[in-house]
Amino acid sequence: MNEKKSCFSAILEHMSSTYNIVSLIRKKRDGKTLTREEIKHLIDAYTTDEVPDYQLSAFLMAAFLNGLNDEESAALTESMLHSGDIVDLSHITGKKVDKHSTGGVGDKLSLILAPIVASAGVPVPMISGRGLGHTGGTLDKLESITGFNVDMDLARYKEIIGKHNLVLAGQTKEIAPADKRLYALRDVTATVESIPLIAGSIMSKKLAEGIDALVLDVKAGSGAFMKNVKDAIQLGEALVGIGTNFDKETIAYITNMNQPLGYKIGNWLEIEECIDAMQGNGPEDVMEITHLLAGTMIYLGGKATDVKEGIQISKQQIENGEAFNKWLNIVAEQGGDTDIITNPETYPKAEYEFEIKSNKEGYISAMNSFEIGMASVELGAGRRMKEDTVDPTAGIVLEKKIGDKIDKGETILSGYTNKPSAIEAASNTLVNAVTVDETKPEKELLVSKVIDRRGCRAFEL
Amino acid sequence: MNEKKSCFSAILEHMSSTYNIVSLIRKKRDGKTLTREEIKHLIDAYTTDEVPDYQLSAFLMAAFLNGLNDEESAALTESMLHSGDIVDLSHITGKKVDKHSTGGVGDKLSLILAPIVASAGVPVPMISGRGLGHTGGTLDKLESITGFNVDMDLARYKEIIGKHNLVLAGQTKEIAPADKRLYALRDVTATVESIPLIAGSIMSKKLAEGIDALVLDVKAGSGAFMKNVKDAIQLGEALVGIGTNFDKETIAYITNMNQPLGYKIGNWLEIEECIDAMQGNGPEDVMEITHLLAGTMIYLGGKATDVKEGIQISKQQIENGEAFNKWLNIVAEQGGDTDIITNPETYPKAEYEFEIKSNKEGYISAMNSFEIGMASVELGAGRRMKEDTVDPTAGIVLEKKIGDKIDKGETILSGYTNKPSAIEAASNTLVNAVTVDETKPEKELLVSKVIDRRGCRAFEL
Repeated sequence: MNEKKSCFSAILEHMSSTYNIVSLIRKKRDGKTLTREEIKHLIDAYTTDEVPDYQLSAFLMAAFLNGLNDEESAALTESMLHSGDIVDLSHITGKKVDKHSTGGVGDKLSLILAPIVASAGVPVPMISGRGLGHTGGTLDKLESITGFNVDMDLARYKEIIGKHNLVLAGQTKEIAPADKRLYALRDVTATVESIPLIAGSIMSKKLAEGIDALVLDVKAGSGAFMKNVKDAIQLGEALVGIGTNFDKETIAYITNMNQPLGYKIGNWLEIEECIDAMQGNGPEDVMEITHLLAGTMIYLGGKATDVKEGIQISKQQIENGEAFNKWLNIVAEQGGDTDIITNPETYPKAEYEFEIKSNKEGYISAMNSFEIGMASVELGAGRRMKEDTVDPTAGIVLEKKIGDKIDKGETILSGYTNKPSAIEAASNTLVNAVTVDETKPEKELLVSKVIDRRGCRAFEL
Repeated sequence: MNEKKSCFSAILEHMSSTYNIVSLIRKKRDGKTLTREEIKHLIDAYTTDEVPDYQLSAFLMAAFLNGLNDEESAALTESMLHSGDIVDLSHITGKKVDKHSTGGVGDKLSLILAPIVASAGVPVPMISGRGLGHTGGTLDKLESITGFNVDMDLARYKEIIGKHNLVLAGQTKEIAPADKRLYALRDVTATVESIPLIAGSIMSKKLAEGIDALVLDVKAGSGAFMKNVKDAIQLGEALVGIGTNFDKETIAYITNMNQPLGYKIGNWLEIEECIDAMQGNGPEDVMEITHLLAGTMIYLGGKATDVKEGIQISKQQIENGEAFNKWLNIVAEQGGDTDIITNPETYPKAEYEFEIKSNKEGYISAMNSFEIGMASVELGAGRRMKEDTVDPTAGIVLEKKIGDKIDKGETILSGYTNKPSAIEAASNTLVNAVTVDETKPEKELLVSKVIDRRGCRAFEL
């Protein structure tokens, strides 16, 4: 017997039928490193209901407080990945590349860049999520297009990407089911905000799509999961670390989420902005990050010699109309109404509209994107609970963004809703979310860092 | 909104119906201190099944790793205490005093000191536990006396103590049921070895007995829960802190558990040694600690002006036969066979006996009491699982103790069992548990520290 081991530990090992699991929890509790096999055993046993929730939640709290190293994170990801199907896209020629964002307000980039990249010849197997909390969800936005269907079986998924180099689908229950259970447990046990657990959750789902490479948009700021660049870098490094561990080329950018992306927030409202963007009329911030991410995907997909060339190709796919054509094709393929896409002005409007005006002259100096996102949820554009349905027409349209001059009485933004009872609370939230100052604020970097297998460095093209 | 709070935390508070509990877990996770009301809310909600096991286990792991301060420990104890009945002994005149030991091997002190103290006029309402792991249980020892009954309702419990100043009972399900559930959960989530959680568990049960004061025997050494004096002091301080918080005078001693107490280990074997002790023939180590603890109880019960005088009275109660008389009375009252007590040689013997002999000449320099306790369990004297039954006749009798000279081939100890299949493994364990060296080891202190509301200091009478 090891004298250093407490007496009680030894008793447990003598007696408990759950010996193995208790000893694994204890190991992490005591700050030690679990082997790949131990992590695998734990997650596999949880998936098959041999380990109850209460044991896993104790492990998760220990992992939250004592951390998981790169190998442990990779093992966790691997276990969750292998808890379900891994899509085999070997029938598709070319390197399959996807993009993932850690979530922001007004973040509609996926919907613009996917058609760009696919039209440039790089297959994009994109599995997205629904909105929860202050961030919108790609699936909810897609479903605001009348008839658009994101639910499909694997055969249909493969068929669509084979035909169009693109598919826009929802997560099936066959993809990383262990992650789904783990996430639900973390949600109710205060173990969500752990970088290795977040990274494992994201990567297990992305790796299951059948990708060869991945571009990550890790957002930092008031509307992001990570409030500051330092935390965002940590998450970016963890994600790139796992991707690298799985031999998938992975590049992450740290991008600014101190104000919403573009001008429109809401489901159909963001589709409108995407249509404008694909027709060459996108907002500057949206287009800058879209072209960077799309250009990187085109480079990783082997259709450009570097990111710079990828960006040129990305811009060209907008100018020559091929991205928009790809968009029309995928909307049609997945059951959506293309008339609405070509005539977005015919889409129904929300019944109620209200404006927030400035009570003084000056410059917009700050926009609390989290609060703006939550106001949009209140108006009906998002979910407070998983079971909630979303209103496709609800949302917010900004008239001004950070750095813009504004006069007293001028409109800062407009709100759209079908719930008149929500207007007062949302208005109050929105009024407090925007700051007007006398002096013009300094312009912030839109993209601050790039992280790849060589590490993290300041971003420059 | 607090900008420092993570975005996700804020979302959860917006959305989750378990808001309150998740935020309490998060608070402890982040190293903050919970209020008395928050601890109470958590434990009450757990007791009424509003909080599931998986949330409490996450909280327990956070408390294990980030600690609980004295006020939090007291609040936890209070919640567990109030989860069940608190015995009202106000009909009994005098200060009610009990003793609790953190558990050791051969620790039969309760059974000797309870009759001593009760016979000296101090009421002793003693609720004991069963053996689990390497330590024996007072209830198992009592039940080795033919007919002795430890199960009773509250009315009978009050009747017995009213009649004899003494009752020797098992814990009813009305006593601190929250502690019982919490302990079972800690057992399977690697959250047992936490000083504040251990202290809360012990004190909630003791405070429920209806006591006015408490003496604690906190053991340190190879056969104890705490392997070293430093850890034992921490536990002692936590226990005294809680007692003080509840206005119960509490005195703890740190005592040596680097070898079994006395010579006999096992249920009836220990009763035999207790009978000898009450008749004035107890082993030196057993009597030294027994008189210290009994003397302290007599002092706390107001029947002596200081501990020294209490010890004199304790010794006197053995010499004048009153302690043994009290013992006979309580055995009779609780249904036990007093003929067996007065004629212990008539008790049945275990079918198999074996001896461990020394393979060299020298001095006994170490005895791993944990291993000796586990060997005794193997032989049938204890439980490996809660459901196991114990064999009253099984156990170990030491012929030698640390510091004793031994010749080659001389017997160190004998084992008794009705399970011949257990002999080989138990023998191996026992051979390895005892060390014989050429030089005589230094004598260790039997009692090293005393802890009361004034703090911890070196023990001297």
